[in-house]
Amino acid sequence: MLKVAICGGSGYAGGELIRLLSSHPFVKITAVTSEKSAGKTVSNLFPHLINHTNLVYEPLNKHRLLTKADLFFMALPHAESQEAVDFFLRNRKKIIDLSADYRLRSPEIYEEWYKTPHKFRATLRKAVYGLPELYRKKIAKASLIANPGCYPTGAILGLYPAVKAKIIDTDSIVIDSTSGTTGAGRKSETAFSYCEVNEGFKAYSVAAHRHTPEIEQELSAVNGKDIKVNFTPHLAPYDRGILTTIYARLKKNAEAGKILDIYKNTYAKEPFVRVLAEGKFPNVKNVRGTNLCDIGLAVNKRTETLVVVTAIDNLMKGASGQAVHNMNIMMGFKETTGLEAIALFP
Amino acid sequence: MLKVAICGGSGYAGGELIRLLSSHPFVKITAVTSEKSAGKTVSNLFPHLINHTNLVYEPLNKHRLLTKADLFFMALPHAESQEAVDFFLRNRKKIIDLSADYRLRSPEIYEEWYKTPHKFRATLRKAVYGLPELYRKKIAKASLIANPGCYPTGAILGLYPAVKAKIIDTDSIVIDSTSGTTGAGRKSETAFSYCEVNEGFKAYSVAAHRHTPEIEQELSAVNGKDIKVNFTPHLAPYDRGILTTIYARLKKNAEAGKILDIYKNTYAKEPFVRVLAEGKFPNVKNVRGTNLCDIGLAVNKRTETLVVVTAIDNLMKGASGQAVHNMNIMMGFKETTGLEAIALFP
Amino acid sequence: MLKVAICGGSGYAGGELIRLLSSHPFVKITAVTSEKSAGKTVSNLFPHLINHTNLVYEPLNKHRLLTKADLFFMALPHAESQEAVDFFLRNRKKIIDLSADYRLRSPEIYEEWYKTPHKFRATLRKAVYGLPELYRKKIAKASLIANPGCYPTGAILGLYPAVKAKIIDTDSIVIDSTSGTTGAGRKSETAFSYCEVNEGFKAYSVAAHRHTPEIEQELSAVNGKDIKVNFTPHLAPYDRGILTTIYARLKKNAEAGKILDIYKNTYAKEPFVRVLAEGKFPNVKNVRGTNLCDIGLAVNKRTETLVVVTAIDNLMKGASGQAVHNMNIMMGFKETTGLEAIALFP
Amino acid sequence: MLKVAICGGSGYAGGELIRLLSSHPFVKITAVTSEKSAGKTVSNLFPHLINHTNLVYEPLNKHRLLTKADLFFMALPHAESQEAVDFFLRNRKKIIDLSADYRLRSPEIYEEWYKTPHKFRATLRKAVYGLPELYRKKIAKASLIANPGCYPTGAILGLYPAVKAKIIDTDSIVIDSTSGTTGAGRKSETAFSYCEVNEGFKAYSVAAHRHTPEIEQELSAVNGKDIKVNFTPHLAPYDRGILTTIYARLKKNAEAGKILDIYKNTYAKEPFVRVLAEGKFPNVKNVRGTNLCDIGLAVNKRTETLVVVTAIDNLMKGASGQAVHNMNIMMGFKETTGLEAIALFP
Repeated sequence: MLKVAICGGSGYAGGELIRLLSSHPFVKITAVTSEKSAGKTVSNLFPHLINHTNLVYEPLNKHRLLTKADLFFMALPHAESQEAVDFFLRNRKKIIDLSADYRLRSPEIYEEWYKTPHKFRATLRKAVYGLPELYRKKIAKASLIANPGCYPTGAILGLYPAVKAKIIDTDSIVIDSTSGTTGAGRKSETAFSYCEVNEGFKAYSVAAHRHTPEIEQELSAVNGKDIKVNFTPHLAPYDRGILTTIYARLKKNAEAGKILDIYKNTYAKEPFVRVLAEGKFPNVKNVRGTNLCDIGLAVNKRTETLVVVTAIDNLMKGASGQAVHNMNIMMGFKETTGLEAIALFP
Repeated sequence: MLKVAICGGSGYAGGELIRLLSSHPFVKITAVTSEKSAGKTVSNLFPHLINHTNLVYEPLNKHRLLTKADLFFMALPHAESQEAVDFFLRNRKKIIDLSADYRLRSPEIYEEWYKTPHKFRATLRKAVYGLPELYRKKIAKASLIANPGCYPTGAILGLYPAVKAKIIDTDSIVIDSTSGTTGAGRKSETAFSYCEVNEGFKAYSVAAHRHTPEIEQELSAVNGKDIKVNFTPHLAPYDRGILTTIYARLKKNAEAGKILDIYKNTYAKEPFVRVLAEGKFPNVKNVRGTNLCDIGLAVNKRTETLVVVTAIDNLMKGASGQAVHNMNIMMGFKETTGLEAIALFP
Repeated sequence: MLKVAICGGSGYAGGELIRLLSSHPFVKITAVTSEKSAGKTVSNLFPHLINHTNLVYEPLNKHRLLTKADLFFMALPHAESQEAVDFFLRNRKKIIDLSADYRLRSPEIYEEWYKTPHKFRATLRKAVYGLPELYRKKIAKASLIANPGCYPTGAILGLYPAVKAKIIDTDSIVIDSTSGTTGAGRKSETAFSYCEVNEGFKAYSVAAHRHTPEIEQELSAVNGKDIKVNFTPHLAPYDRGILTTIYARLKKNAEAGKILDIYKNTYAKEPFVRVLAEGKFPNVKNVRGTNLCDIGLAVNKRTETLVVVTAIDNLMKGASGQAVHNMNIMMGFKETTGLEAIALFP
Repeated sequence: MLKVAICGGSGYAGGELIRLLSSHPFVKITAVTSEKSAGKTVSNLFPHLINHTNLVYEPLNKHRLLTKADLFFMALPHAESQEAVDFFLRNRKKIIDLSADYRLRSPEIYEEWYKTPHKFRATLRKAVYGLPELYRKKIAKASLIANPGCYPTGAILGLYPAVKAKIIDTDSIVIDSTSGTTGAGRKSETAFSYCEVNEGFKAYSVAAHRHTPEIEQELSAVNGKDIKVNFTPHLAPYDRGILTTIYARLKKNAEAGKILDIYKNTYAKEPFVRVLAEGKFPNVKNVRGTNLCDIGLAVNKRTETLVVVTAIDNLMKGASGQAVHNMNIMMGFKETTGLEAIALFP
């Protein structure tokens, strides 16, 4: 049994990790940290876990945790992960960091968007971006995984086959995403209270969201030269799921009839990507509680534009599910272990 | 008192017309039609109207209705309006048609998108597109108003100032809209039942929605030459409201700092458009139950793209509220009469 | 124009008062207070009010407010109203207090349930319980109105005709209520954040809710001797509305067939109560945004039990709408002034 | 591998059975029937099942099905199950019937409430009521299980310990339940369309719901003499879950302090009942997607009344989960097999 610790286990991503790892056959959770809730039982904060776990929150004491676990899931707010990640890595532990701290390969871009210094540049260079569909082999050998952001996961998976096949004009990309409210975290802010979100719909961080450089970094790497994208996130009144609608002008040589095949072939062996049949489009409801990314696409012949729509569960494929997938790859477990649940519908 | 009839009064737009017109000081509803519900009271179908109306549904008997009213609101499904509109117009009545039948000036384009013939081309030439912000003067003199579609209202108002000012590349327009579920009408279809819509989010009619040519027609008219747009509607789990996020590449000569002023100036005298302060973006929740269109915008300097976000209540500014506004203009009433209600928040 | 001030105008009840009073033809709002938001515009906290009000929040400075208004709406948390109410009353102002501070005629019972002393017992004796259907005449002459609680409004109106007619066993009353989440106020607490409330349903304050003695006080007064009730509130995932389902065993002499008439007669002249036809039951959706209380009832012959169901909008008839109704009565305005809006459906 | 067939697999309970049985290690689904959808793939109706099943709907041909399966789940509408159940039973198959057809031991009471004759009285006498907490031993030996109704499951489990311990006045029982909208089935009725249900809350079938005699039958059996109950169901805007709030007057000899222990002891060995700690009450959100029944209780000392609150997922413990539990007992599988999933929160 692999001993794992979860640093930052009182939020939604942390709760989801506890849910997934409690049922994982090859793993034992040995510690869960929370500064605010230290001393409380996990099931006190998450009553759905009553009878499923006896864990008690403890403060993040790095030296104490070292003796308890061999793999660390870091679900701390951005900037708070940096130092602990470095510490565990130096002590030869494996780490899957769900924060943004090790996702951007350029510390300058990190500092520009996150407005905080990156103090562990040598460690940053060791991090592997944990999107298995792009980096499976590197993940298998890595000790530090930067688990992708929720929006980037849906956006990159939606664009990867088209960018790789060089069928779109990479200057023309528009990414319009909508997230359920778990994306905002488990927070006590009026703006995310029930009555403010319910029956509402809005764009936010327009032309300024921090996931933009992450999307650009990965698409640029596939493309071989820099891509800039227009990205707008929206907040919607449901719990889980991100739907991403992507627009990109087709190059003249692109054969509209073959694009679906390009997508199907790209993801043919992927356990967690479903490319839907022609004319079918995804709904976040169909992937809820799963690690799946559903993809549908259409070609708008009037405007010579490719429209791709992807759906993920932001807490699963967009966070904790993908983290468990990364762990399975790192440890050599069957990739789908602990992630077999079928979507809860309705 | 102006005597008005509502043809097709059992759906949501019809119910909203009854709600608005029951409180309108210069209007008396003399007839409401429904084939299915003929003989039933309006308050039987709409219990919120108990004590507010004694109207009883009757079948649409054109000759009988002629004697009852001087202005007709047509809230029938597409294609069903054509003949009745023509009949009432020939009999010198005023008509506000909420269907799509008289919106597209080209009968060929209508037939291409709606898959049904247009049999009244001479009448079609008399119709005025009822978007007051663009056609106020024509509306004042018109007898037949084609009340705009819900998505086109939000899209056109969001793009009109930019297209008119020639600051955007009109080849690059992406319109990404999300509607609450009243947009689907009052329907007994499994796909719109509570549990199918709730906790879901999806795109639909991708690259194929019928409101596309309507948006293109109006933007092209402003532009002076043809515009084609990418338009994707989405369905979201809330009752009322359309949020539209629009992307268009800025021309090189566009001065980013002046764009908000262009928008503010364009709509300075409009009673139902609120251009928000810099950095503020609309939320459908803030216009619920009102005839308002809220507009916010940002310039993405990294991609030289204008992002405009608009919010309307699809049953109000997107349908029945705009119809009442058109009536007020046609009849010389103060434009805001009967449309003064403040949004119900939360 | 009557000059009114709103003390505590940043919560939902306060926002609703601003919405209602901004449209009231005989009233001018001259001040709105908030300690936290002093200096901010009202429309900054409530963007739906943009263009409808230029008011700016100010701190609650009693002496300054005295010069500004003649009637005060107090929408402060419990216990915070006591002293200010006393001050304004001594200075011959009229007050409508939406808090619980002056609702319970017994200061001992107040102190038992609210765990705080009542320091203004003489003032308490002058307060009139502002439920117009029971106390219209007293309200007309009063200077201090204790505006009823949201749950008590629905519960008392549902039981009043039956208790008065002495047709039920007053030892057997069960009151089961469900409130939308605006009932919890505009709060930054995790427990009321979107994802905690959405897709959930729970009972709370079981056998211990503070509205219990308020319900008992009023029913006991009607009954002529003490009544104790079982009351359980529930929290549901919607914004507005309280549905109350009431059970009481019928006395042997009660004629089941006449009970609906008793209800209809009791409320025949009430502008804000709709007793529904036999077999019809209320839905909070049908009273949303209105000051109405809808009532439906059935007799369970198998158990000889009367079941009454009532629906109100908790922010309107359960708070701010009823407060405006009370103001209209106190000032001799037509009772429905400013409260004519038809429910927003759907 | 046990071969099972699902008769009536296009509704929510059927979909849930497919979801659960697809993951069950000892079971193979060999047939799923639907008259309307015969010939379509299951994943066409339930896109969340894409890649999880290749099943195709077929019409219910009894003779053909006989050769295909050894255990039959019947998820047909009431009255439609009767004959097929009898047929399969005569052919020595095992049957778990999710309809109401074999739940009521008295065919007269069935006919009174369901307004349809019961034509298979001999078969009815062989049916075992499939509530494992009450009838585990009989279930283990049974061939025909009448799977309990959703409301009765929550109501009976909430009252069983108190009735058995004879601590409540059985004349005074009030059962107030609220169901999510999946309880209405997968239907194309306007009344259950999104916009009619959303932001609404209502009681229905007041004093007349068909689950009443089922609750009474089981409580009377425990009690040893007839019990009649007041039962009111409500419809709420969320997908899954029934919360039941139960009131019953305590007998004089009841010791309030011992009641929680009575409940804890009664269910101490039950894998799917969680009696919560003192002061804690259930929320449907905490059992979503599970076969659990959470129970909380309080004693109202002012009224000498016991208040019990229970929560279940109506599609799981209230239907398909309980059906799988019954199958596990009948077949001698470990009871929790295939039902281990932790609740999806949030």
